[in-house]
Amino acid sequence: MKMSQLSTESGVTVASIKYYVREGLLSAGEHTSANQASYGADHIHRLRLIRALIEVGGLSVATAREVITAVDTPDMPLSWIFGVAQMAISDADLYSPVAPDSEGRHQVDEVIARAGWTVTEENPGRAGAARVLDTYAQLGQEHLNEISPQYVEAAELIAQADLAAVARNTDVGDMAQTVVVGTILGDALLASLRRIAQEHVSYQLFPPTPRSEA
Amino acid sequence: MKMSQLSTESGVTVASIKYYVREGLLSAGEHTSANQASYGADHIHRLRLIRALIEVGGLSVATAREVITAVDTPDMPLSWIFGVAQMAISDADLYSPVAPDSEGRHQVDEVIARAGWTVTEENPGRAGAARVLDTYAQLGQEHLNEISPQYVEAAELIAQADLAAVARNTDVGDMAQTVVVGTILGDALLASLRRIAQEHVSYQLFPPTPRSEA
Repeated sequence: MKMSQLSTESGVTVASIKYYVREGLLSAGEHTSANQASYGADHIHRLRLIRALIEVGGLSVATAREVITAVDTPDMPLSWIFGVAQMAISDADLYSPVAPDSEGRHQVDEVIARAGWTVTEENPGRAGAARVLDTYAQLGQEHLNEISPQYVEAAELIAQADLAAVARNTDVGDMAQTVVVGTILGDALLASLRRIAQEHVSYQLFPPTPRSEA
Repeated sequence: MKMSQLSTESGVTVASIKYYVREGLLSAGEHTSANQASYGADHIHRLRLIRALIEVGGLSVATAREVITAVDTPDMPLSWIFGVAQMAISDADLYSPVAPDSEGRHQVDEVIARAGWTVTEENPGRAGAARVLDTYAQLGQEHLNEISPQYVEAAELIAQADLAAVARNTDVGDMAQTVVVGTILGDALLASLRRIAQEHVSYQLFPPTPRSEA
């Protein structure tokens, strides 16, 4: 199909499609004449993945490109794909290393030891969790400045569901895409469910008056 | 103290401080002469909150301003503060309304009914979760396209911990800040713990060879 049709089918503007091709997120179409190229179903599917990562996952174009390159690399070990998906979350410096004397680091080490988890030093979640705890401390939020057992239990439940979904794939290429999409969009799903559950629990703890319930 | 000292104390550059004052995130200092103003401990604390929301929470300057305005409004109902914190997550359109015929919406309604949760139609998590599910479906990720019972259980555990932390505050102003900081940075904490737990669970499901363990 022509680019104009690809735009209609995918709901992505021609300008955006050209931009993604220029930035290396989408392969160029097959040239059918000097100034016309032909696009196929793969291009539609790829455009959907790009939009999902950027619009729903909140990734920058540069980070989306890294993620897509990882998915496209054949025979990449699953652990490596996990690594790419794990790093690609937000443009904030959440997962960059924290100071060696960070109090949050010690708290995270303790939580991991208490949970009996096996985790390498390189796992980006260590720095992310430590940074949040250090920030709570700086803000004087002593009610938040610890990782509650509920958070630990919840994280393990979620990880079990995540890995079960990955293991249900039979094709390795599909597995890679499930890891990437599930890790990045799963954060958004979890944040959304958290907001829903917060409202429910807040009614239990702070019951609304009959008037506000009506 | 002078602005130069405020910069040293807070670790925020003078240019950034001036920018935050101009954008309405930080109140101007008290004028001591025609071209000099004096800043206090409140300014340091506020700068820490601004940096936490932007750098760790990943908020835009505009969204951080909305959140801070909410925290500063005296006698604001707790449910309203929750609403502001819930909306202020990312610049992606995750929480904007989904189409009425969205399949994800029906799935979310079912999950809420099955869990027995009381949630208003306005809760932004409904649209966020529906959008993620619709995106999974568009991407052909049928292994992800449902909300697993583990995610539901995890969300409720997390919400219970969140509300317990809010309830431990005795001052209403502190409570507002705990809600905002805990909701926004709590997403980052949870995403970090998820990455840590994913690594642990992946070793259980796909054990590494002795060589790669060494």
